[in-house]
Amino acid sequence: MTEEKDPPPFYARHVFVCVNERPADHPRGCCAAKGGERMRDYMKAKAKAAGLGRVRINAAGCLDRCELGPTMVIYPEGIWYGPRTEADIDEIIETHLKAGGRVRRLMLK
Amino acid sequence: MTEEKDPPPFYARHVFVCVNERPADHPRGCCAAKGGERMRDYMKAKAKAAGLGRVRINAAGCLDRCELGPTMVIYPEGIWYGPRTEADIDEIIETHLKAGGRVRRLMLK
Repeated sequence: MTEEKDPPPFYARHVFVCVNERPADHPRGCCAAKGGERMRDYMKAKAKAAGLGRVRINAAGCLDRCELGPTMVIYPEGIWYGPRTEADIDEIIETHLKAGGRVRRLMLK
Repeated sequence: MTEEKDPPPFYARHVFVCVNERPADHPRGCCAAKGGERMRDYMKAKAKAAGLGRVRINAAGCLDRCELGPTMVIYPEGIWYGPRTEADIDEIIETHLKAGGRVRRLMLK
């Protein structure tokens, strides 16, 4: 049996930003209440302006790391971040998406 | 400078199922209208029942391959599928998520 190779990746990098919303009194909180939607909109616009090629900034439902939110994960490398500010997003775009590095201080433990 | 290694993956496999909804007359259509939400609910329940370990079946916003919907992508391997039926989902769970193979007939071109 010959093993077929996987097709080339459709996106070079696929970013999923949690925008999940829960009731205000939910014990785990939610990324929506912590600015997830705003983070995603900002990152999408900045990534587009930066002319990044096959990079997609996606909205996602609950990524289940709510306590650390707002959270995002970048595939295929599977690196998770918890940005708090627009400057954090800028740094993730420059250091990770553009240069292929890591923003260690923002990575989730 | 020493290069730090990336942390181990938080999820062994992270599945994103598009549940994006657009107006009924949108030219590209949408995965919601093609059963995306139902597919996701079914897959989440089946994956849970199958006792798959660190596998998460996530809802996602528009994955931007609407014409091929309902669509899903499995990371870190970045394999895209366009399941049409619950039997298709069962096959993806058995062949891909459990056995690490590929369901070639359902993969997006």
